[in-house]
Amino acid sequence: MLLRGKIGIVGSGFVGATAAYAMVMRGVGREIVLVDLNTKRAEAEANDIRHAIPFAHPMTIRAGGYAELSGSLVVVITAGVNQKPGETRLQLLERNAAVFRQIVPTILEHAPQAKLVVATNPVDITTHLTAHLARALGAPPGSVFGSGTTLDTARFRTLLGQKIGVDPQHVHAYVLGEHGDSEMLAWSQVTIGGATLDEFCRRQQIQLTDEDRATIDQSVRRAAYSIIEGKGATYYGIGSALARIVESVIEDQRSILTVCAPAAEVAGVKDVTIALPRWLAATAFATFPQPLSAGEEAACSAAPRLSVKPFPASASE
Amino acid sequence: MLLRGKIGIVGSGFVGATAAYAMVMRGVGREIVLVDLNTKRAEAEANDIRHAIPFAHPMTIRAGGYAELSGSLVVVITAGVNQKPGETRLQLLERNAAVFRQIVPTILEHAPQAKLVVATNPVDITTHLTAHLARALGAPPGSVFGSGTTLDTARFRTLLGQKIGVDPQHVHAYVLGEHGDSEMLAWSQVTIGGATLDEFCRRQQIQLTDEDRATIDQSVRRAAYSIIEGKGATYYGIGSALARIVESVIEDQRSILTVCAPAAEVAGVKDVTIALPRWLAATAFATFPQPLSAGEEAACSAAPRLSVKPFPASASE
Amino acid sequence: MLLRGKIGIVGSGFVGATAAYAMVMRGVGREIVLVDLNTKRAEAEANDIRHAIPFAHPMTIRAGGYAELSGSLVVVITAGVNQKPGETRLQLLERNAAVFRQIVPTILEHAPQAKLVVATNPVDITTHLTAHLARALGAPPGSVFGSGTTLDTARFRTLLGQKIGVDPQHVHAYVLGEHGDSEMLAWSQVTIGGATLDEFCRRQQIQLTDEDRATIDQSVRRAAYSIIEGKGATYYGIGSALARIVESVIEDQRSILTVCAPAAEVAGVKDVTIALPRWLAATAFATFPQPLSAGEEAACSAAPRLSVKPFPASASE
Amino acid sequence: MLLRGKIGIVGSGFVGATAAYAMVMRGVGREIVLVDLNTKRAEAEANDIRHAIPFAHPMTIRAGGYAELSGSLVVVITAGVNQKPGETRLQLLERNAAVFRQIVPTILEHAPQAKLVVATNPVDITTHLTAHLARALGAPPGSVFGSGTTLDTARFRTLLGQKIGVDPQHVHAYVLGEHGDSEMLAWSQVTIGGATLDEFCRRQQIQLTDEDRATIDQSVRRAAYSIIEGKGATYYGIGSALARIVESVIEDQRSILTVCAPAAEVAGVKDVTIALPRWLAATAFATFPQPLSAGEEAACSAAPRLSVKPFPASASE
Repeated sequence: MLLRGKIGIVGSGFVGATAAYAMVMRGVGREIVLVDLNTKRAEAEANDIRHAIPFAHPMTIRAGGYAELSGSLVVVITAGVNQKPGETRLQLLERNAAVFRQIVPTILEHAPQAKLVVATNPVDITTHLTAHLARALGAPPGSVFGSGTTLDTARFRTLLGQKIGVDPQHVHAYVLGEHGDSEMLAWSQVTIGGATLDEFCRRQQIQLTDEDRATIDQSVRRAAYSIIEGKGATYYGIGSALARIVESVIEDQRSILTVCAPAAEVAGVKDVTIALPRWLAATAFATFPQPLSAGEEAACSAAPRLSVKPFPASASE
Repeated sequence: MLLRGKIGIVGSGFVGATAAYAMVMRGVGREIVLVDLNTKRAEAEANDIRHAIPFAHPMTIRAGGYAELSGSLVVVITAGVNQKPGETRLQLLERNAAVFRQIVPTILEHAPQAKLVVATNPVDITTHLTAHLARALGAPPGSVFGSGTTLDTARFRTLLGQKIGVDPQHVHAYVLGEHGDSEMLAWSQVTIGGATLDEFCRRQQIQLTDEDRATIDQSVRRAAYSIIEGKGATYYGIGSALARIVESVIEDQRSILTVCAPAAEVAGVKDVTIALPRWLAATAFATFPQPLSAGEEAACSAAPRLSVKPFPASASE
Repeated sequence: MLLRGKIGIVGSGFVGATAAYAMVMRGVGREIVLVDLNTKRAEAEANDIRHAIPFAHPMTIRAGGYAELSGSLVVVITAGVNQKPGETRLQLLERNAAVFRQIVPTILEHAPQAKLVVATNPVDITTHLTAHLARALGAPPGSVFGSGTTLDTARFRTLLGQKIGVDPQHVHAYVLGEHGDSEMLAWSQVTIGGATLDEFCRRQQIQLTDEDRATIDQSVRRAAYSIIEGKGATYYGIGSALARIVESVIEDQRSILTVCAPAAEVAGVKDVTIALPRWLAATAFATFPQPLSAGEEAACSAAPRLSVKPFPASASE
Repeated sequence: MLLRGKIGIVGSGFVGATAAYAMVMRGVGREIVLVDLNTKRAEAEANDIRHAIPFAHPMTIRAGGYAELSGSLVVVITAGVNQKPGETRLQLLERNAAVFRQIVPTILEHAPQAKLVVATNPVDITTHLTAHLARALGAPPGSVFGSGTTLDTARFRTLLGQKIGVDPQHVHAYVLGEHGDSEMLAWSQVTIGGATLDEFCRRQQIQLTDEDRATIDQSVRRAAYSIIEGKGATYYGIGSALARIVESVIEDQRSILTVCAPAAEVAGVKDVTIALPRWLAATAFATFPQPLSAGEEAACSAAPRLSVKPFPASASE
């Protein structure tokens, strides 16, 4: 019998629905189930996306309850509540934590073998929480990770590639740390055609000024802000990034992507969830620290200290 | 020098933006320009979609003014105003007609060679108007067509294929007429593996009752309603259909799709714009009437009589 | 755990190796095993094809013995001996029959669940024999079929599409009967955009003379001859056709392709194996007779009478 | 009007024909012309490949004379004579040089704008000769390059990726120098996820012994030998590599591939043609030297000294 490559998506808002649409357009998996408290919305999204299938790849998509996640290889979590007027970031986090304390056990009850891919922002924190909840329920290490800076890394490569005239697929560069304002573009690690970025630019007589770097840095780090200002939300980029992550997992490609996942220690900080280049595979999930410049290491270790505080490991384990 | 396969999209609402996203995911064209009065929105959509490119095909996308449509092979028009509370359908049409009387000449001024693909609803009427406006400005016949029932045809094949267990790509079936409530599923024309649907079902001992047909008919005809009820709009299906139409044109595939376009006469009605199976190609665009059952022919010719009234040919030519 | 979409190919000559290469380029399945008596050749082909994988889709390919077919969803059989100088066609058939009487049981011993796709010529006869051998070993009906006229059908659509200026994907046409000189282009069944070929041409004022039809007919029927004259063998077309057939099976697409398979009766001839439009799917395999013109039906039923004689059902059941 | 993405292939032996087939399967370009002295063979190859098109991407392929190369964006040269018994390598080179002195001017006469991609072995020498011939005829610098070690680089990444369990697309590694026995796997440049290979292995506690490296080194360097022993020639890998190179050029992707091309100086050797990581693009073609370990640099500069001798620059300029 054929295993159908089943994928669950919990949360059918713009990010969840666009991720499903991206999977259909890219041909990732064979069967998608959309789960949402708002069943009418989930049903409508599944119907709208289903009409795209004849123009894409043979797959099925439907709305369903948690029980229909059974058999999923991967469950993407995009669920979460939105910030209310006057609400602090911590209050929002607490409300989202309450949501995750409900849905994570329910997902694992029905799909105990599934990898969980978290996309709800602030993604490092929700991933951290999800991982601890999952661990407490007996999920093996490596079962939970988040979108992290997968999209930011892609942006970095694109902008740098455009600036120096190289296909982004051949710009080997990473964004590390906590997704958001404090994330770090690891300039010291960039290689192109086997050369460091500095060597490459020097030998090719390309000018890449500090100002150019700062512009790229800002464009990557603050990309979401300008999009949200113009259209209220961002979902095409992250939807495609999620489809890419899920593809790597269900196809067992052993890709290296900057997802976030819990690590025992990063640069002296213990039990921390940030984005680093990581292997994604169906049967393996490994983390490896990076050789960074001194300044980069400091930036990387400073960031998460704050972010992981709201959900100390002790509370969730 | 390489011609870059440039595509313009006028209107960066959900349909226009999703069409652009579908083109990126499918790899249609090499360069997309989004034009919208709301330049901030267009800019934000282009930025969000651009972030999906590293996960898809090498292309460029940007927001721009009408002047940047120059060189486009195809311009997709999704622009239009929304119905105001209390506004009648005719009043809405008049306001949209005013919009089209402005944008069509502007588009053709900058991209006189472009094929225009209209997606604004009611699509048969806006296509009719666009074709007459374009003709008056000297555009050659075959320059203008609309999405018509391309999506409805895909839905028909999918639902019928699922019902009888056949890959939709091998169900040869069409939805004709005016996109919307009065459209017609041409059951009498359906062929599968060289057999008519009736022969196929008889020989395969498949039960396909009148009730089954009515269910499929309703699901196709009223698909948009249930989606709009659940999520307020429909755009994934139509976005993918538009990407498919544009691909056929810029690749000169000479596909047969049920786009709508003006015809001198259909079933006795003159100067009418409805969906029929039509060739799409870069250099040719032909229409052909269909052999229908008597009831189907009546249904097909009745529909458009009403719809084309608001924009008599004399007014726009 | 992921089922890897395993495919076996028995016979690593030009047809078998090209089929494997086409599967890699198209991304069909996840794992290919090449089996050949000439293990050095199989090893070399697998190595050469493996080097194409980084430029195509993530898959594995290797040479192996029959035991390594275990777990295959599909096994393609391209094995067979070549005609010796002075050997009659019947003598060749007998020698190939001897080969198949050995390899079919061995394949089914190791891969009892696999669908068998036969490509060795004369394909209808080797498929007939394989089906009877498999049936005798307890394989369920629908487990065995051959490439039949899948390639001829594609050629027919391409040539007719070029002649009348329509994308071949929108020319719905079939070649039926015994693959080779006696095969039949089912002109009476052709539909395009819901119209018969005659209606289509009449309404589009396209001239399609009897001579045009005869030219297409000859080009389809005798395509292999001119290729073999020029390069000694034909393998690119059939390799791609085999990849398409296998894809349909392992993806459970329920496509309709003109493969050949045993039928209880076709046009009055009993226990006959010829090509007809047939469903291909992982769990279902159905045959349906065609509505043909009287002349076509006669042509179709005449052909196989001779071909199936060498292997009477009684001998193999 | 659409520019059709025309590609010429001179030489329709196994490598040329497989490259054309790979382009069809991958969807590279829109129009392929096969040129060969043996017009029957070219015709037969084109016909065989054409039959694969319905299962792949909409393109055209045909055999033609040199005049039909007109308008090609890229011309791939796979032509050449084979070694006769008793013939020395130098004698073979001289005969092939005579062939190239004829065909290069003929190609440039009809397709003066085309990039020339040389695949005839020994590829560095034939590329060197072609570049000098083209330069003498007024072709701009960067018009000529050869397949170099593009395939060897892909093999290196695949084997190393398998050994350490990482998707080859995420193993950033290059093979440099002269394609063949003296080529050099640039181990010191390998990066994975931003780390050097050594760091990566140390932190992941992966054992990668000198013996493992030697095994990979031999497998890459001598891959062709074992294939040629088993099947007489190698063409699937190189065919796919050529399709990838051509795609990068006609799509203007600015990829970095280890093609070979003339350089004014590499490691102290002047006017030398070897493989280095290079940009490929429609409008730009740049070379950059590599930071190598001392031993690697010596290996790299030693190799070509011999190989370029047969065609001193002075002779061909």
